Amino acid sequence: MTDFHTGLGKNDANYQPLTPIDSIIRSAQVYPDKTAIIYDDLEHNNFMQTWQQTFTRCRQLADGLRKLGIDKNDTVAVMMPNTPAMVECAFGVPMSAGVLCTLNTRLDINALTFCLQHSEAKVLIMDSKFADLAELIIETFPNLIIIHATDIAVDVERFGQMSYEELIDSSDNLENWERPLDEWDAISLNYTSGTTGTPKGVVYHHRGAALNAISNILDWDMPKHPMYLWTLPLFHCNGWCFPWSIAERAGVNVCLRKMDADLILQLIAKYKVTHYCSAPVVHNMLASGKPELKDAINHEVKGWVAGAPPSETMLAHMEEMGFDITHVYGLTEVYGPVTVCAEQEDWAVLDVAARAQKKSSQGVISHLMTGFDVFKQGTTEPVKADGEDMGELALRGNMVMKGYLKSRKATEAAFADGWFRTGDLGVKYPDGYIKIMDRLKDVIISGGENISSIEVENILYKLSEIQSCAVVAAPDDKWGEVPVAFIEIYDGSTLQRETVIEHCRQHLAGFKVPKHIIFAEIPKTSTGKVQKFELRQAAKSLAHETPKVVFGQK
Amino acid sequence: MTDFHTGLGKNDANYQPLTPIDSIIRSAQVYPDKTAIIYDDLEHNNFMQTWQQTFTRCRQLADGLRKLGIDKNDTVAVMMPNTPAMVECAFGVPMSAGVLCTLNTRLDINALTFCLQHSEAKVLIMDSKFADLAELIIETFPNLIIIHATDIAVDVERFGQMSYEELIDSSDNLENWERPLDEWDAISLNYTSGTTGTPKGVVYHHRGAALNAISNILDWDMPKHPMYLWTLPLFHCNGWCFPWSIAERAGVNVCLRKMDADLILQLIAKYKVTHYCSAPVVHNMLASGKPELKDAINHEVKGWVAGAPPSETMLAHMEEMGFDITHVYGLTEVYGPVTVCAEQEDWAVLDVAARAQKKSSQGVISHLMTGFDVFKQGTTEPVKADGEDMGELALRGNMVMKGYLKSRKATEAAFADGWFRTGDLGVKYPDGYIKIMDRLKDVIISGGENISSIEVENILYKLSEIQSCAVVAAPDDKWGEVPVAFIEIYDGSTLQRETVIEHCRQHLAGFKVPKHIIFAEIPKTSTGKVQKFELRQAAKSLAHETPKVVFGQK
Repeated sequence: MTDFHTGLGKNDANYQPLTPIDSIIRSAQVYPDKTAIIYDDLEHNNFMQTWQQTFTRCRQLADGLRKLGIDKNDTVAVMMPNTPAMVECAFGVPMSAGVLCTLNTRLDINALTFCLQHSEAKVLIMDSKFADLAELIIETFPNLIIIHATDIAVDVERFGQMSYEELIDSSDNLENWERPLDEWDAISLNYTSGTTGTPKGVVYHHRGAALNAISNILDWDMPKHPMYLWTLPLFHCNGWCFPWSIAERAGVNVCLRKMDADLILQLIAKYKVTHYCSAPVVHNMLASGKPELKDAINHEVKGWVAGAPPSETMLAHMEEMGFDITHVYGLTEVYGPVTVCAEQEDWAVLDVAARAQKKSSQGVISHLMTGFDVFKQGTTEPVKADGEDMGELALRGNMVMKGYLKSRKATEAAFADGWFRTGDLGVKYPDGYIKIMDRLKDVIISGGENISSIEVENILYKLSEIQSCAVVAAPDDKWGEVPVAFIEIYDGSTLQRETVIEHCRQHLAGFKVPKHIIFAEIPKTSTGKVQKFELRQAAKSLAHETPKVVFGQK
Repeated sequence: MTDFHTGLGKNDANYQPLTPIDSIIRSAQVYPDKTAIIYDDLEHNNFMQTWQQTFTRCRQLADGLRKLGIDKNDTVAVMMPNTPAMVECAFGVPMSAGVLCTLNTRLDINALTFCLQHSEAKVLIMDSKFADLAELIIETFPNLIIIHATDIAVDVERFGQMSYEELIDSSDNLENWERPLDEWDAISLNYTSGTTGTPKGVVYHHRGAALNAISNILDWDMPKHPMYLWTLPLFHCNGWCFPWSIAERAGVNVCLRKMDADLILQLIAKYKVTHYCSAPVVHNMLASGKPELKDAINHEVKGWVAGAPPSETMLAHMEEMGFDITHVYGLTEVYGPVTVCAEQEDWAVLDVAARAQKKSSQGVISHLMTGFDVFKQGTTEPVKADGEDMGELALRGNMVMKGYLKSRKATEAAFADGWFRTGDLGVKYPDGYIKIMDRLKDVIISGGENISSIEVENILYKLSEIQSCAVVAAPDDKWGEVPVAFIEIYDGSTLQRETVIEHCRQHLAGFKVPKHIIFAEIPKTSTGKVQKFELRQAAKSLAHETPKVVFGQK
């Protein structure tokens, strides 16, 4: 054994904490005059800012926050749509040594109060549109410093102690910021939008943020200077770390306040947007957008979709528009996407239906994660890679959270056996690609057999009149549980229960066919997740009755 | 302050050591049937191997080495040209937990003995062409296990205990390998080819190797599945970490035994090579290659050049061929290139001469390094960014070595003040791009003025009859030192001393004009570096005499 340790330790020359802050430092230096941010609602507020300007403003923001008393591990909460200020906060807050807590913009006052209390936020940067909430908050948190960001003309009373621009202007020292001393230091705090229970505070570190930002680039083959459209909320897992990816690539952040199909299609055409991410809802909006707006797009656009696989219909529409859609999968606990349905060369020659089938799997591990596998529940024993044997998806690597803030028990449970348990049930194919079949808690166990609620939902979605649907378990005296389908149909549709049942019988084994079909509006969380918990409650009361409509029939 | 530490520590789920081993694991899983290695001298030995096959063989290699007794921190030396075995060793040796020591294939027996002794190598994997050396080594190192790699038919006695293929075949356990437990663990050992003194053993760690591999990809915008030609010796800084970059990108390693212009041009055309790296000598070889071979290349090829800027002539030739050349800079101590002359959009419209001028700077810092600057000598005070104020280039970040093996003093000297001192003298331009003017020890101080030997050499190279030249200091009673030029001219040239002097007078200040012009063959190290030390010795004896020819005139 040769001694490769003595006298060969770490020092400032050969070891520096990994941090996504480095990405903006480099781009501001190498590409100072390249555009960093565009903000354009096509009517007013046309706005462009270079990387040098953005870096300067981020340093001013850091200095301003420090002058307000922000120091190491102080929480700075922000509640804003995808505006330029939101991009700047992704850098300026960590550069102040504070921890960035991006709040879901749909939080109600109760959830907001919980998050501010739990995170011990010292500063809250809030868009003007939330003025009403601010008034309520001031009473509960008299020491909270509220900064109002007002990039649009809104008719509200001044609600904060200071405006965002005043905060920037308060800076007089561009060197008053820092890189982290330890790459394990917290960079941000993201509250889960759990469908049940109180939100959990997921803590990210600089190392993971830096690596996920790069992994995004590698997974997507993203070249220098992409034109990235912010159709994904920046409050969602720090925009899946894309503010840092785009800085690393010296690309352009195209910001926008609201998710409007016309606006998005026009921005894509006007700025020749190259990349965007979003939940299926936005993709579907675009796929069914105005033909003249779609026709105006004549360059290749790449989109990532997470939350559900791209449907055949959506994929066909998108491909016609020249959009190249990739399915990714992730959770708040892992900084956003950590698996990617990496396309294989031979998929290109398939027809759209077959390609949609291929693209519907959650795929393989992201470049910079280390391990993923599907384990038999409660074990670390892999399931058979046969596409049938179901188990829980587990992950490990540097893009997994530090843990849940102030929840040692939940943290320890999530990290049992050295793997992060996703709570998602899936299968593994012979080629190593994995497919999520259901959330563990959403599986329906009927007569001892597992039924994936998602499998049944996917069959239902083949009926083009169904806009949204959800399948949950209802208690049953004979079978233990039986599947119940809640269905939301398009306006004007006359879809009948019998047609649905017949369709299911043709495509599913008998025990998987929903025993009750309920036409109703489906309750969703602020991020668009179906609240199956509520549906299960409703289903309970239905189990022994004649099916009836709940939640207001269409 | 919120407590973002308690209960939020590292565990196997959320922290894994960074290592380039992960790159081959992923590519073997996601792209098992994609080609990993091609080896084709266009006559025989046509050879192709997939990523799955390569990963299997690397695991076999690791298992085989462990069965020979290799364990944590045991040195495995290799001495091979750029063959497939050399690519496999970049993975198989670290996977055995051993440390890879790639030896310069031009080492003589004395240097080789030094490296084997100093590194305490337990195994030496050696190409058959070095059979003569092996015989000498066996006597000195009776316990050294020599593995002979014989992919070509050579007429030598069997010189090793075992062949490389026997070593691979000795494996019966594909799981007998490991990822490092600590990313700071040594992955490789690279001896500098110092122009004076004994070689120094530069120790790399897994973290730096993984990050440099990715930084290469980001700097070069390298997409998935590149076709990479091994014109850069794999023994040189582990091929600048490109074996790991190519695995990360699931690309193809096109291997070749010798640097022959015809062969290289044919391989580029045959396999549509997309990327290659090399010293200027190879680029020059290609630029002046056979027209019919050059004409057969009709796709874009990207090349990195280090060691000297691309000359205007070379660049013009390369651009005509459709080659896109980028100048990078690095040292053994920093894993290969760590600055890159990042091209700016507006360079595209310049004429070739102006573009060559732009491309001649060493540029800006690589993506994943943290700091670089030019400091006034012996301080950490930056020079003026005016393109004139000279100082020493200093670097810091994760792509800097652990240090020099068994040389605490040299390590500490290199890392003074938390920066790695490169020993290179340079200037910084207003746009932050840096340019190396000279090695610190090669600067000539004449009458109190600094003369950059490289500046004078560049003027000399404008004379097209000069094939190679070197300018060094000679002691002088009046001026302290004066510049002396050693010049190697092309066969058939009749270049006269007077012409050279006149040319220098026109382009240089009087004190920079060489006082002696010596036509001679210029001594170079095995890696092609000019041995200025020897030239200085020769210059000493000339200072007070009439100039005469040394080293055998042409």
